Amino acid sequence: MIDRYSRPEMANLWSDESRFRIMLDVEAAFLEAIAKEKRIPASEIKVFRKAMERCLVDKARAFESRMGHEVFGLLAAVLDEVSFAAPNLARYLHYGLTSSDLLDTALALQLTRSADLIIEGWHVAAARIKGLAKRHAGTWMAGRTHGIHAEPVTFGVKLAGWHAEAQRNLERLRRARREIAYGKLSGAVGTFAHYSPEIEAKVMARLGLKPEPVSTQVVPRDRHADYFHALVLSAAAIERFATEIRHLQRTEVGEAAEPFSSGQKGSSAMPHKRNPVLCENLCGLSRLIRSYEGAVVENIVLWHERDISHSSVERVVLTDAVVLLDFMLGRLKIVLDGLDVFPERMEANFKASLGQVYSQGVMLRLIDAGMGRWQAYDLVQAAAAASRSSGRTLCAELLANREIAKRLPRRELERCFEASSYGKNLPAILKRGGVL
Amino acid sequence: MIDRYSRPEMANLWSDESRFRIMLDVEAAFLEAIAKEKRIPASEIKVFRKAMERCLVDKARAFESRMGHEVFGLLAAVLDEVSFAAPNLARYLHYGLTSSDLLDTALALQLTRSADLIIEGWHVAAARIKGLAKRHAGTWMAGRTHGIHAEPVTFGVKLAGWHAEAQRNLERLRRARREIAYGKLSGAVGTFAHYSPEIEAKVMARLGLKPEPVSTQVVPRDRHADYFHALVLSAAAIERFATEIRHLQRTEVGEAAEPFSSGQKGSSAMPHKRNPVLCENLCGLSRLIRSYEGAVVENIVLWHERDISHSSVERVVLTDAVVLLDFMLGRLKIVLDGLDVFPERMEANFKASLGQVYSQGVMLRLIDAGMGRWQAYDLVQAAAAASRSSGRTLCAELLANREIAKRLPRRELERCFEASSYGKNLPAILKRGGVL
Amino acid sequence: MIDRYSRPEMANLWSDESRFRIMLDVEAAFLEAIAKEKRIPASEIKVFRKAMERCLVDKARAFESRMGHEVFGLLAAVLDEVSFAAPNLARYLHYGLTSSDLLDTALALQLTRSADLIIEGWHVAAARIKGLAKRHAGTWMAGRTHGIHAEPVTFGVKLAGWHAEAQRNLERLRRARREIAYGKLSGAVGTFAHYSPEIEAKVMARLGLKPEPVSTQVVPRDRHADYFHALVLSAAAIERFATEIRHLQRTEVGEAAEPFSSGQKGSSAMPHKRNPVLCENLCGLSRLIRSYEGAVVENIVLWHERDISHSSVERVVLTDAVVLLDFMLGRLKIVLDGLDVFPERMEANFKASLGQVYSQGVMLRLIDAGMGRWQAYDLVQAAAAASRSSGRTLCAELLANREIAKRLPRRELERCFEASSYGKNLPAILKRGGVL
Amino acid sequence: MIDRYSRPEMANLWSDESRFRIMLDVEAAFLEAIAKEKRIPASEIKVFRKAMERCLVDKARAFESRMGHEVFGLLAAVLDEVSFAAPNLARYLHYGLTSSDLLDTALALQLTRSADLIIEGWHVAAARIKGLAKRHAGTWMAGRTHGIHAEPVTFGVKLAGWHAEAQRNLERLRRARREIAYGKLSGAVGTFAHYSPEIEAKVMARLGLKPEPVSTQVVPRDRHADYFHALVLSAAAIERFATEIRHLQRTEVGEAAEPFSSGQKGSSAMPHKRNPVLCENLCGLSRLIRSYEGAVVENIVLWHERDISHSSVERVVLTDAVVLLDFMLGRLKIVLDGLDVFPERMEANFKASLGQVYSQGVMLRLIDAGMGRWQAYDLVQAAAAASRSSGRTLCAELLANREIAKRLPRRELERCFEASSYGKNLPAILKRGGVL
Repeated sequence: MIDRYSRPEMANLWSDESRFRIMLDVEAAFLEAIAKEKRIPASEIKVFRKAMERCLVDKARAFESRMGHEVFGLLAAVLDEVSFAAPNLARYLHYGLTSSDLLDTALALQLTRSADLIIEGWHVAAARIKGLAKRHAGTWMAGRTHGIHAEPVTFGVKLAGWHAEAQRNLERLRRARREIAYGKLSGAVGTFAHYSPEIEAKVMARLGLKPEPVSTQVVPRDRHADYFHALVLSAAAIERFATEIRHLQRTEVGEAAEPFSSGQKGSSAMPHKRNPVLCENLCGLSRLIRSYEGAVVENIVLWHERDISHSSVERVVLTDAVVLLDFMLGRLKIVLDGLDVFPERMEANFKASLGQVYSQGVMLRLIDAGMGRWQAYDLVQAAAAASRSSGRTLCAELLANREIAKRLPRRELERCFEASSYGKNLPAILKRGGVL
Repeated sequence: MIDRYSRPEMANLWSDESRFRIMLDVEAAFLEAIAKEKRIPASEIKVFRKAMERCLVDKARAFESRMGHEVFGLLAAVLDEVSFAAPNLARYLHYGLTSSDLLDTALALQLTRSADLIIEGWHVAAARIKGLAKRHAGTWMAGRTHGIHAEPVTFGVKLAGWHAEAQRNLERLRRARREIAYGKLSGAVGTFAHYSPEIEAKVMARLGLKPEPVSTQVVPRDRHADYFHALVLSAAAIERFATEIRHLQRTEVGEAAEPFSSGQKGSSAMPHKRNPVLCENLCGLSRLIRSYEGAVVENIVLWHERDISHSSVERVVLTDAVVLLDFMLGRLKIVLDGLDVFPERMEANFKASLGQVYSQGVMLRLIDAGMGRWQAYDLVQAAAAASRSSGRTLCAELLANREIAKRLPRRELERCFEASSYGKNLPAILKRGGVL
Repeated sequence: MIDRYSRPEMANLWSDESRFRIMLDVEAAFLEAIAKEKRIPASEIKVFRKAMERCLVDKARAFESRMGHEVFGLLAAVLDEVSFAAPNLARYLHYGLTSSDLLDTALALQLTRSADLIIEGWHVAAARIKGLAKRHAGTWMAGRTHGIHAEPVTFGVKLAGWHAEAQRNLERLRRARREIAYGKLSGAVGTFAHYSPEIEAKVMARLGLKPEPVSTQVVPRDRHADYFHALVLSAAAIERFATEIRHLQRTEVGEAAEPFSSGQKGSSAMPHKRNPVLCENLCGLSRLIRSYEGAVVENIVLWHERDISHSSVERVVLTDAVVLLDFMLGRLKIVLDGLDVFPERMEANFKASLGQVYSQGVMLRLIDAGMGRWQAYDLVQAAAAASRSSGRTLCAELLANREIAKRLPRRELERCFEASSYGKNLPAILKRGGVL
Repeated sequence: MIDRYSRPEMANLWSDESRFRIMLDVEAAFLEAIAKEKRIPASEIKVFRKAMERCLVDKARAFESRMGHEVFGLLAAVLDEVSFAAPNLARYLHYGLTSSDLLDTALALQLTRSADLIIEGWHVAAARIKGLAKRHAGTWMAGRTHGIHAEPVTFGVKLAGWHAEAQRNLERLRRARREIAYGKLSGAVGTFAHYSPEIEAKVMARLGLKPEPVSTQVVPRDRHADYFHALVLSAAAIERFATEIRHLQRTEVGEAAEPFSSGQKGSSAMPHKRNPVLCENLCGLSRLIRSYEGAVVENIVLWHERDISHSSVERVVLTDAVVLLDFMLGRLKIVLDGLDVFPERMEANFKASLGQVYSQGVMLRLIDAGMGRWQAYDLVQAAAAASRSSGRTLCAELLANREIAKRLPRRELERCFEASSYGKNLPAILKRGGVL
């Protein structure tokens, strides 16, 4: 876990202490499920649950270093605490279970809770996006393809697209949460050789999970890879938004800027600098999460009923990815909350391209007026090139063209150069994006 | 596309000819949708639809080489065919559309059809897996973790796990198909500046797609990345199965073998060789598909309303991935159809490990008989180590131990060494895996 | 191989025909090396070399489809041609060799020749970069960090950095070529069981390769992964250059533009568009090559003396990568040859940021004049913020500040706002970058 | 950094404390270089160097949290310590430098020292491999391709291949060390605007680095990507070795086993288990390092003179990768030191495949005796298949064949089935691998 890029609640969930406690939760639920059959008194279960609340990390690690086995270390630590006061339970602790029964079920619990936090983080961010989209529903700016002015758009429509992407990612995370909410208590190679599937069913119900239909020694790793992909796509969405802000904040564009607190230093060398460092950081973090994915997919192909090569991978990148994504959502919220938007600059940039963004409208009017598509295209293309080199507006260049004048009266041509005529369907789009 | 690793139906779907035809299909549906408003006679639409059936690839490529723009090349080619016979249509061809309207909608059609083929391929493979699972529901073999004998399992249970994974992947592919079945006809930057969303709705309904709620110049690329991941997970599942077969076919294991046709040569040097080359090939192909994913995720982060950097990536790896996965499913079917299974060898291997696979059962009986977990574990562990070095069975070693003799009568101990006692819950597992 | 993104010479090198011919070249060199010992007459070798020149692809593929083995198919095809006229040779064809002896040695030849073509491509591109760098050694523009104006730089210095990166990549490619120039003729598991290392030495010398010191059935795949990385880094360099041009070509920046041929269409919808599509394509292609790398590295871990899982990976991505990189270098040359540079726009942009780029210089002068670093920083930072919101120059804001006035006379302050004073060390940099 | 998978010396090198100290080392070297010109007395430098030795991490982090800038925080912390006692120095601290001057130069120092540790780790491991290779130079075992017995080999030859791969990786690491040993002190956008390249040269010489010929605000990131690849290839080599051991340790193979300490627990469920968990862990760690590479390559393409998106990536994966690889080398040493090798089992496995491994030798003798290649191949292939199903040796099957009997006398045929005849060239191989 990377402290620098984490938020406390998520970091706590993935601490050793929390992890061990969740594993012991699974063990406790198991002991309760077999208590009647194995005659473990309720009082001993209480002793166990009490012991769990003590922080056992150091003791568990000490045992582990002797035994070379993490789960064993944890069990030894807890036994050391309870074997005197709960002798019956002690004998049946972990009875017929294999380490992965604990590990994978606990992991499912950590991942579902992580999904909940991330979903919450997206809800917060999506609400901010929606608010901004409403506010800027009518803020015209240049739509850009290839980094080049294309046709007019409003900042609100751009944000409606973000909002729709946020919704898709929320849906993916809900789906991922469902797909990962499977535990297993099927024993060594998944055969329930030493107790029945009913025990597993009871334990999973208690923990809020479903039993894995067919497990090997482990829950199959395609679930984890599918879950992981939802994280990757969420990170990529944030990277897309952050990249847009970085572009808008460029010196020459200047249409928006991420927040910059007073007291903040942009550069150790250059006092004038105000840089989109939060957004750049979001891009880097997405790069990280994305790159982890290959290792997670490789984990699917374990040998036979399991090997343990996936374990180190998951310790590092599952943890990293949920922690980083949670942090990214928090940072995205900060960026959106403090986003400076400069509508007058949007308008100025838009106007500075000499009306070129209206070229298609002119072409279509010429076609409507009976001109062939090819001819209309070539005429307008030539006028646009002329405008770029002369510095005169596209409208002026077109007005100077006799072919065009023949087809389009000046007034009609001039009407082609009004942003508002591009706005008639925008409310429908905002609605489709869920922001109106 | 890699000819060597393709099947004809899928290869045809992704040929230039098919791609262009599907793009023209979109254009035709658009022309029909605006026909009334723009007064394009039905007869001209017929002319257009007829022209589409001619193979226009060479002509389109010729125009493209002049214009540096593929869609333009295609439109020029078709115009060249129809402008005389369909002059009204000619003017309104592509009216108010942008290239991505065609490209992305056509791509959605290719990807949904590809999903259909892949789903079909999985159905076929899953049926084979189910058949094998039933046949071998009672074929005992060593369950293995870490490549080491663990506890008994049946080959049928192993295959039930494959079947469950196949079902999960089928569900993912259905979901991916739904998620990719979105087209767009919203024009240059997605603002419907030059016609209404109703036209888009009509066209999409006709093509069996849904309109993208908020598009930019393109359908957002998170959809493609999500679709792609379903391919990656399917490939990884096949890789897992293939890896299992490779392990089982090892000289020392010899429990199963992929088909080997008469006349086939295993090695140019060594006449005796019969190698699992099909399965190794499946592993390599999965590696390929998996590695492509990074590029597909990077495509999400296009600049502003779009740049075109995604295009080359998609031309190569979207095509490659669906074609390769389709091929893999075909090859998996061949492997499963001709899979040689050697139950007697499974039994022999299983017996050769001196009963070690029953160690947990003994330990649990000792606990049931009142021994502490730690002690029971250590006693059985020591006996197992002794068995490995002496070559005597674990049972024999245990019988020689006084501590154990005190707790477990010989008959009861011997009963621990029967595979059948591990079988009581297998029918339930097979059912959960959908094979019973 | 992706026809759309290939150049003929490289494409030919990787055609089936060329590949088979190179494999037969290896076989011929082997036959010559054993000719004396096995009494193969020179006339028969001639027959063989003649047969090789015939295109055997179709015949080889036909045999392959029966035998399920590509090398076998090729040998059968050539035997079919020569067994009558060269009976002695026929018996000793492939004598004691294994397929990988041919395949890997041939692959080494293809990859070394590919490296030669790529090195040539880089030389051409580097020469163009050098030319541009010289021409623009004194063309001042805004240096930018975080997309925000930082301090002045010249376009020539920027290009000197490209030139240095090109040189590093050339060095890497030369090194990669050396590292891949290893073949093997050591037989089935690399033991020279059926002939001596001297034969291998002779053959390799003849082919211009070195013998792999310790081969298994194959040349170890870390060589290929190392070679591949040189391709990845070259592609990333080109992506960096292309990204810079895309940024410079943005509507608001407008400092440079990739070539746009007359007759070219920028957009099917918007006649005014001139887009950096070549550069965007270069970015996409780099993304592809980069993503392939994971699969190539996975290939290192073959089982025991070899499995064949690497084969499909290499057929696809080794070929793709060299072909794509060669194409990229060709396209880079086109971009550089036709690059439009707009020095007046560079100057205008640079001036439009109100002299903020000189903020550090002012701060340092204040320190020289005895002010503390913190205070100097804060004063200049405040003035810069004021300038941004007032629209007045930084110089004006500073002149209005009494603290500053106390320390720096107006004339000295104004001198801080001259680009030329940033130029004294630029010639040294250009020299270090190899362009002066 | 992942504590679980780290060794102390490397972990210390990458601690915050060490990192800050190295950055201050760079700053100190810079101050010394400008001391004369700026009249900073030697006594003040001493004060500074003394302050550096105090652990400034907490103070630096506290300042950072106010200023939002790590380097600023560190400078503020050190200034707070020295500004009273070293007022002249205080003014010139970081004079004309930019953060990246410190960060990148310090990073180069950390990476070169890391390379030294890794190189040392490889030397240790390579010495172990060499020792094992010598000891088992004559230990015959089955060479395996596709997991199937191929031809005889010795364990020593296998290890000679590892040794050669270790040497190649050592060479790559030395090269990587050279390539990363570049720092920069060229200021904000690399123009030496505020001091001369000579200062940089002095500082770099003092630190044991070279000046980056053309830097932007940063040292170009292709260097880091190239360095990183050396780590990836080293990890993949270890993964290859670990995978081999995992295969050899399989229950059915049993030819080698990684160490298993007394007291160690193989499985929490199954007392008999002795699993290759160290080797599996090595495979997982390699998977991790390999997956990181994509992000590191993406870092090459920073915008203009730099953005800061690379920073978070490098904080995580550069650190992780060197720490993990160092740990892997330590673990590899442990595995090799305690590796159990079972020559008698190697021999037994080898013999159990009924002499099939000698098939090529027989075929070649038949060719020598005048039979055509095709006929010889088919005869031996048929006999091998017969042997597999009958359970009789290949030799017996061949002796029963009249065609063969006609060509090869029994004695000569029997001589084909002796491993020793495969050994004549093994000493040469061991020598080429550097182990003899």
